[in-house]
Order: sequence, then structure tokens, then C-alpha cells
Amino acid sequence: MPVITIEGPAGISKEVKKELIEKVSQTAADIYNMPINTINVLIIENEADNVGVGGKQLSEIK
Amino acid sequence: MPVITIEGPAGISKEVKKELIEKVSQTAADIYNMPINTINVLIIENEADNVGVGGKQLSEIK
Amino acid sequence: MPVITIEGPAGISKEVKKELIEKVSQTAADIYNMPINTINVLIIENEADNVGVGGKQLSEIK
Amino acid sequence: MPVITIEGPAGISKEVKKELIEKVSQTAADIYNMPINTINVLIIENEADNVGVGGKQLSEIK
Amino acid sequence: MPVITIEGPAGISKEVKKELIEKVSQTAADIYNMPINTINVLIIENEADNVGVGGKQLSEIK
Amino acid sequence: MPVITIEGPAGISKEVKKELIEKVSQTAADIYNMPINTINVLIIENEADNVGVGGKQLSEIK
Repeated sequence: MPVITIEGPAGISKEVKKELIEKVSQTAADIYNMPINTINVLIIENEADNVGVGGKQLSEIK
Repeated sequence: MPVITIEGPAGISKEVKKELIEKVSQTAADIYNMPINTINVLIIENEADNVGVGGKQLSEIK
Repeated sequence: MPVITIEGPAGISKEVKKELIEKVSQTAADIYNMPINTINVLIIENEADNVGVGGKQLSEIK
Repeated sequence: MPVITIEGPAGISKEVKKELIEKVSQTAADIYNMPINTINVLIIENEADNVGVGGKQLSEIK
Repeated sequence: MPVITIEGPAGISKEVKKELIEKVSQTAADIYNMPINTINVLIIENEADNVGVGGKQLSEIK
Repeated sequence: MPVITIEGPAGISKEVKKELIEKVSQTAADIYNMPINTINVLIIENEADNVGVGGKQLSEIK
């Protein structure tokens, strides 16, 4: 712990995931003033059909 | 915020997801008395092998 | 399962929670075409200090 | 990772939490065949007013 | 309720999932002193690219 | 969406939460290349009794 879950769009590259993990972990470690090895990150990829924003299906907004 | 996560069965159609998003968002907006554009919905699809109900694997119950 | 988690504002009344549970459960049961006794709902109350919308602390927006 | 989140009733003792953490972590470590030091557990306590089971508010069922 | 979400590695077998469901549910039922039929379990499978441990992408650590 | 949930320690100040929200949101917006107003953040505070790390209760490790 801490555990940071990032619910985001599907289909992002391995490099984008790597950058998210590195930078979000470092940001949290710095602000919480905790060692970075305590930080866990989970990136969840959500298809646009499965996401609602403002009552609309994201795939319908695009 | 609010963010509503719906952990449900896998393999539902786009139309079912659309209806879930629309009706759950509207229900929450009405009851919270908040504008619908503040409501986020995430539909997560779970395979029956990955779900336990009462200590049993859902795919074994069906 | 299904399990519906509603991350919303803190300080809502018991009656509002009751209405959310009843109506969101019924909506999900109808749309998933599943018996209502399979539906679990968890209402999580979030203080405005703990919520970010568009990069801003919700308590700072109000 | 693994991260195990246990959404359960509020008001359980420190000892019950300790036992949950120890036994659930060991069970997961054994079955996943992973070292126990990789296992994180989060116990979330939910008031009965905030929980819906079968469309009913848990505090109303008791 | 209780609802136990197990965020773990991807690619585990149906039998491993079954064992996780059975043993984690029984452990929780015993410790919470609640009937096992109240326990829900969700097993989420995470690809190593999507997981950060100590600021590093899990697929890069292996 | 995206929705970023940060499960961290309890008892952090409003300023720390504000900084977490601002910096984690900006980091995610930059890396996802999405407008910052699409980013939601939820900070969850966990008591040390409720957290397990490596099979041990966090409050017992300190």
C-alpha cells in the first residue's frame, strides 16, 4: 500500500503504460513521502462501449 | 464524481450497456439531485469462471 | 454478482441511500434480466477534500 | 500485486482484521504459488445503511 | 456482502480460480462468522504490462 | 473517465490531498494525451489496522 488503480481507455501501448506506472508512482511516493517500493499501480483498460460519461455511452460520443 | 462501477456478467450487448449507462446515470442524478454530466459509469464484464457466489464458482453453478 | 459500487458525496441521508439501493438494484435487475436478489450495492461516501474533478479538489470548486 | 480488497461490515475488531489479513494473504499466496510478501490486503468497512442486498438496505433487513 | 475482489496475475487456470473462490470465501465466512452464501468473490486478471510494483512495470521486472 | 483511485494511508492533510489530485491528474492527462477536465481522482484513506502488507497488519509492522 498505497495502491493506485487507473481506470482508463483501452488500447494504449506498453510504453504509455510504463510511463504511467513510473510517473504516477513517483508522484505518489514524493507527495506521500513514502518509499517508491511501497507503491502498487493497476491500469485497467475500458472499452468505449463500457464507459458512461454524463449519461452517454462513450462510444456514442466519439 | 459520482462514479458508478457495475461489476456484471460478460458478453452483454452494446445496447444493453447503453441502456445500463443511461438509466443508472439518470437514476443516480435524480436521487443525488446532481447534474447528469457529473455521473461516470464503468461496466466491468466478469467471466463466470472468475466469479464466486456463496463459495461456489459461478460457472459451476450454471 | 452483479455488484454495483456507487462512489458519491459524503453526508447523504439514510433515506437517500435506501432510494439509491432500491432503484439502482431494480434498474440493473431489469436490464440484465436477472433476479433482484443477485444484486449487491455498495455506497461509498467521499469527502469533498478527497475528490478531484478536472485536476481540482472538489472542496475548492464549491 | 496481488491486491485483495475485502468489502465487509463495519465495526469489526483489530484482532478480526489481523486474522483476515493473515489467513486471506496466506491462502492467496499458496494458491497463486507466489511469495506472501507480494500480497496486499485492504479491508473496507461498510455501514449497514450503505449496503444493498437483493434491492434492500442491509440495515432494514436486520 | 461481503464482496472480495482479488486483483491478481492473468492466465491462471479455471481450477486455480475455483480453489481461490472456495478457500477465500470459506476463510472470510469463518472469520466474519457469517454464512458462506453471503460471500461474493471477483477475480480480476491483470496483464504484467498493466501492473506497477515499486514504480516498475511488472513485465519489465520478470 | 479516466478515474484514478488512490488507496493510501489515513490522516493526510487537505494540502497533501490537493497536491495529489493536481499532480496525479496532470500526469495522467499528459500521458494519456487527454484534457485534464476528463480526469476524476478519488483518495481513499485506510487505517493501518485495515491494511495488510506481506500477510502482516500494517499497524503491527510500525
